[in-house]
Amino acid sequence: MTRVARDRALRHAGQMSNSERSKLSIVGAGAVGTSLAYAALIRESAREIALYDIQKAKVDAEVLDLAHGTQFTGSSRIIGGDDLDVVTGSDVVIITAGAKQHPGQSRLDLAAVNVGILRGLMPGLVERAPDAVYILVTNPCDILAVAAQKFSGLPSARVFASGTVLDSSRLRWLLAERTGVSTSSVHAMIVGEHGDSEFALWSQARIGPVPIQSWRPVDRAPVSADELDSIAEDVKTAAYRVIEGKGATNYAIGLSGARIAEAVLRDEGAILPVSSVLDGYHGISGVALAVPSIVDASGVSALIDVPFSEQEERQLQDSARTLHEELAKLGLG
Amino acid sequence: MTRVARDRALRHAGQMSNSERSKLSIVGAGAVGTSLAYAALIRESAREIALYDIQKAKVDAEVLDLAHGTQFTGSSRIIGGDDLDVVTGSDVVIITAGAKQHPGQSRLDLAAVNVGILRGLMPGLVERAPDAVYILVTNPCDILAVAAQKFSGLPSARVFASGTVLDSSRLRWLLAERTGVSTSSVHAMIVGEHGDSEFALWSQARIGPVPIQSWRPVDRAPVSADELDSIAEDVKTAAYRVIEGKGATNYAIGLSGARIAEAVLRDEGAILPVSSVLDGYHGISGVALAVPSIVDASGVSALIDVPFSEQEERQLQDSARTLHEELAKLGLG
Amino acid sequence: MTRVARDRALRHAGQMSNSERSKLSIVGAGAVGTSLAYAALIRESAREIALYDIQKAKVDAEVLDLAHGTQFTGSSRIIGGDDLDVVTGSDVVIITAGAKQHPGQSRLDLAAVNVGILRGLMPGLVERAPDAVYILVTNPCDILAVAAQKFSGLPSARVFASGTVLDSSRLRWLLAERTGVSTSSVHAMIVGEHGDSEFALWSQARIGPVPIQSWRPVDRAPVSADELDSIAEDVKTAAYRVIEGKGATNYAIGLSGARIAEAVLRDEGAILPVSSVLDGYHGISGVALAVPSIVDASGVSALIDVPFSEQEERQLQDSARTLHEELAKLGLG
Amino acid sequence: MTRVARDRALRHAGQMSNSERSKLSIVGAGAVGTSLAYAALIRESAREIALYDIQKAKVDAEVLDLAHGTQFTGSSRIIGGDDLDVVTGSDVVIITAGAKQHPGQSRLDLAAVNVGILRGLMPGLVERAPDAVYILVTNPCDILAVAAQKFSGLPSARVFASGTVLDSSRLRWLLAERTGVSTSSVHAMIVGEHGDSEFALWSQARIGPVPIQSWRPVDRAPVSADELDSIAEDVKTAAYRVIEGKGATNYAIGLSGARIAEAVLRDEGAILPVSSVLDGYHGISGVALAVPSIVDASGVSALIDVPFSEQEERQLQDSARTLHEELAKLGLG
Repeated sequence: MTRVARDRALRHAGQMSNSERSKLSIVGAGAVGTSLAYAALIRESAREIALYDIQKAKVDAEVLDLAHGTQFTGSSRIIGGDDLDVVTGSDVVIITAGAKQHPGQSRLDLAAVNVGILRGLMPGLVERAPDAVYILVTNPCDILAVAAQKFSGLPSARVFASGTVLDSSRLRWLLAERTGVSTSSVHAMIVGEHGDSEFALWSQARIGPVPIQSWRPVDRAPVSADELDSIAEDVKTAAYRVIEGKGATNYAIGLSGARIAEAVLRDEGAILPVSSVLDGYHGISGVALAVPSIVDASGVSALIDVPFSEQEERQLQDSARTLHEELAKLGLG
Repeated sequence: MTRVARDRALRHAGQMSNSERSKLSIVGAGAVGTSLAYAALIRESAREIALYDIQKAKVDAEVLDLAHGTQFTGSSRIIGGDDLDVVTGSDVVIITAGAKQHPGQSRLDLAAVNVGILRGLMPGLVERAPDAVYILVTNPCDILAVAAQKFSGLPSARVFASGTVLDSSRLRWLLAERTGVSTSSVHAMIVGEHGDSEFALWSQARIGPVPIQSWRPVDRAPVSADELDSIAEDVKTAAYRVIEGKGATNYAIGLSGARIAEAVLRDEGAILPVSSVLDGYHGISGVALAVPSIVDASGVSALIDVPFSEQEERQLQDSARTLHEELAKLGLG
Repeated sequence: MTRVARDRALRHAGQMSNSERSKLSIVGAGAVGTSLAYAALIRESAREIALYDIQKAKVDAEVLDLAHGTQFTGSSRIIGGDDLDVVTGSDVVIITAGAKQHPGQSRLDLAAVNVGILRGLMPGLVERAPDAVYILVTNPCDILAVAAQKFSGLPSARVFASGTVLDSSRLRWLLAERTGVSTSSVHAMIVGEHGDSEFALWSQARIGPVPIQSWRPVDRAPVSADELDSIAEDVKTAAYRVIEGKGATNYAIGLSGARIAEAVLRDEGAILPVSSVLDGYHGISGVALAVPSIVDASGVSALIDVPFSEQEERQLQDSARTLHEELAKLGLG
Repeated sequence: MTRVARDRALRHAGQMSNSERSKLSIVGAGAVGTSLAYAALIRESAREIALYDIQKAKVDAEVLDLAHGTQFTGSSRIIGGDDLDVVTGSDVVIITAGAKQHPGQSRLDLAAVNVGILRGLMPGLVERAPDAVYILVTNPCDILAVAAQKFSGLPSARVFASGTVLDSSRLRWLLAERTGVSTSSVHAMIVGEHGDSEFALWSQARIGPVPIQSWRPVDRAPVSADELDSIAEDVKTAAYRVIEGKGATNYAIGLSGARIAEAVLRDEGAILPVSSVLDGYHGISGVALAVPSIVDASGVSALIDVPFSEQEERQLQDSARTLHEELAKLGLG
């Protein structure tokens, strides 16, 4: 056996490896899952990206379409199929699979269907990727984070939802457009439920180093309280407007998912409003809500205690109550 | 007037500007156009990306979905709408708009519909973006390149189709998978019609510095002529397989379009198999065919004369004949 | 004349161009200037990067060394030489040229030498790049920003110094290391003179959405006031320690310079603590001090009024007084 | 113990990790080593970059200067010091340490000094990073690759020199400038000794798909054999000219080193002219020479047999003879 053959054999036997080896799996090859895979390939979020779906013809075609573009991206690879084994050894698993809301179907009925899907899915995933961090993107994502954590038996730090990461991105874009500064200089966050009870953490929002309420650059107009209210309302209804116009949202949520995965894979310690099951945060336990969280290789490695205003505190507790009720109705309370 | 206000006024009057100012417009907000915009935003292909479509609700929703993700990308911006003025001042315009093939509709009938669309579209585009390079991505792209060039009255260097850039990417991916080397070390090209008469330029294909026919690394298997035939056939049928599984191809063609635009916007001089109207290339004139072309800020700044094998020369002439016949039937001959 | 030749001629005559065309010139091919050029090439901060120095052999060798690496970077180009014409048409000019402090030489004597260099340099630069934004990196940079603005006759929005951008980067790195979060989630700034009278704007510093003084994540230790003092002191003495160990600082300042140039070239509206000549900011006029500034294609397009604490206000006025005195001694008051 | 604390403990115990974990160590904090670290940080070549040098004050200052810039780069980290333990667990170790040529010192005397340094260094490195791929950048790199392989006892696939990767980059840049195409469309390689006996593999060089000898685009001039000779000569003397002007080469070799490391860390299978100890390649054994090699996570996973022209074959054998003689004189034959 030549040295090269011997080395290769050793390497294939897992006894020698010098590569980055990060693996991101995406469950669900719909518009969200494939947009997420596309963004992750272009950004090189992980070395290997695996796409799984139960519909074989669909997932094979999506993997092929994505692979055909890899000439123009970096050294990330895409694989996939309808065999759950494609997720084996993942560092991060993002779940985008789920039913869509049918006309006439209540939000709760939809939740029940998607909880059922997770119940079937999680054990097989955890068996194949026992060390992965799991990120829920399917809606209602706060409810599903609780369900996935239960079904997986994993610590809540390792099973969480994308929460209001996308909502916060919408907020920052609107504030950047309004104030004429870069989104990277806008520091603002939406927290709470990813849904109607979410709210902007205005008390801590800043343009550069300036509280948003004090923003008054030479020659530019300040932002009034009414404008802030209207911007927050815009964020809350943004998804509805996108869905009305194109039938779904996929691009921004795809980027959000890739971004969260990177914070884990690169062990960043980024502070993001993801949604994990709380255990005494502001007195709240047993529900998952988006609050500022440190995201690194261990998942949600810590929650951050923010000084909320009185109104914000009330809104957070309202969000928690809403979710508690839904969980109870779904038998997950 | 303060200095800042004065400077800003000057700048808005176009008398002062220090930014990169590159603008890429995409006509058509379907799956291809929006995937292209998404890739271009993530890659920062251009500073400003404009998306145009006649369907207002659809294009507004797509622009919103794309804008919501810009928190996670660089400093590129997305605008758009159903007013053709959004393309004003573009450096590159990519056309993805067009009808899809209906069941029972012949390829030629489809071509006629899309030629009609271009006839209506080009004058308005050229009026608003007279200095732009125009890239046709809609199929049949070689036919439409001829039509668009005619309707625009622009030099053929500035109106061309994506040709076999995507087909070549598919070829390189398959060869990379087969030989175990990086796609960046595979040098191979599909040329001719973007369609059934296309062919691999095997006589010039290489793995690193080695002719593909001589590829024989220590401890690895060579690639037989039969395998090469089968790989080329795979490339030719790839689009059909993707369409069968997911109904369309969008991700790889989106990346291909962004890549070609970058070659123009960055004045690269990249050699790409794009399809522009030929004028005496290997004796061929009046049809657009993908041949190795230097793509820079002026568009196709030169064609490259490759030493074809006898068989390849025959295949090129066949491709030309096929396209001549189609053009004649469409009244564009 | 063929179409290609004709198009190329038109293009060379400036009548047709579709490229990004951004040009960054760097004056001074020392360790700072060349590190900056290296970072700008790798990051593709501008399409064309020009390096100018009066020492022909040195600058030619640096350009060659940088050009030899462009195989591994993107499509940015490097040119340069000892002919000032290389800066012609720049969008941004960064000045890194200047004498170094000799043993026994006072800070003021050094300033006088570098003011003299600028007096000779600026008219020739402005003649060749009349629309550029000028960024001073040479020390003492706040003094030189005033001098360069005077000698150029340009509005103060277009002539400014890197100020405390690097100092703020040092601060954020130290806080990130201390708190275990990503630097991108640390929002803190050093303002004032780039020198001994600079100070941290603690009243507005945040970890994610949390005031630094309230930082108390579950399971992690808060940061005491003493620690904050010690971190700010560390920042202030960092340059001395680097210089003591390696004789100069070049890498971090190179990245800082490239970053500021990008904010201009990409018209970002980023908020950065650069140093431009003030005109009534907190009652201060006629000196250049680093304060939060919106940086876009027009240069410093606006200053931001931050609610300073009493102590910070006092420190800012002290910084201003120090600089006023130095300017007076240099005849620039 | 809270869930977070428990998870963190597990993670620190190495029982849970979801990050990319790639580590690149650089031995030697001189101009080459630090330029390489700078490029690797900006490009995010590895998640962790460690810099080692025996001079404590120097290496600490370099690490500090590099760390101060990380605000502007991605999520890669820099550590380092004068304790060899900083390299522990590396995936790739690049050796840039070594003496410089003194006036009057022969090339062979220099080689002997650097061989001595390696003799002391390798055992400690291999003990701390037993699974790493080792890349020699110090000159004479082909000689030192043989020495390092011997002293390490590792398979030759995992100990190799940068060879003519930089020389090939110089060649491609010159050809790109000459032909007006992008460097990415120039396929050409320098092989053999990284030194005076190196030569261009003209028989396999291409511009896009065209043999360089047949390059004749419409409206552009072909490249004559004399020009090719002169370009190859330029490449060979480039380092001398850079050293004459600036005293050293560092930027391009820094990028070359980062690029080779990436090919390993990303398991690319890139074909690069690195220099590993040959064992029967074209009948050559026991010397290290740059020949086209597949570089992936196992190091040099295969050599590629290129059809050399008669002259090229002679040049290769000459290179081998030169190196055999030097090795014999150094007692390494």
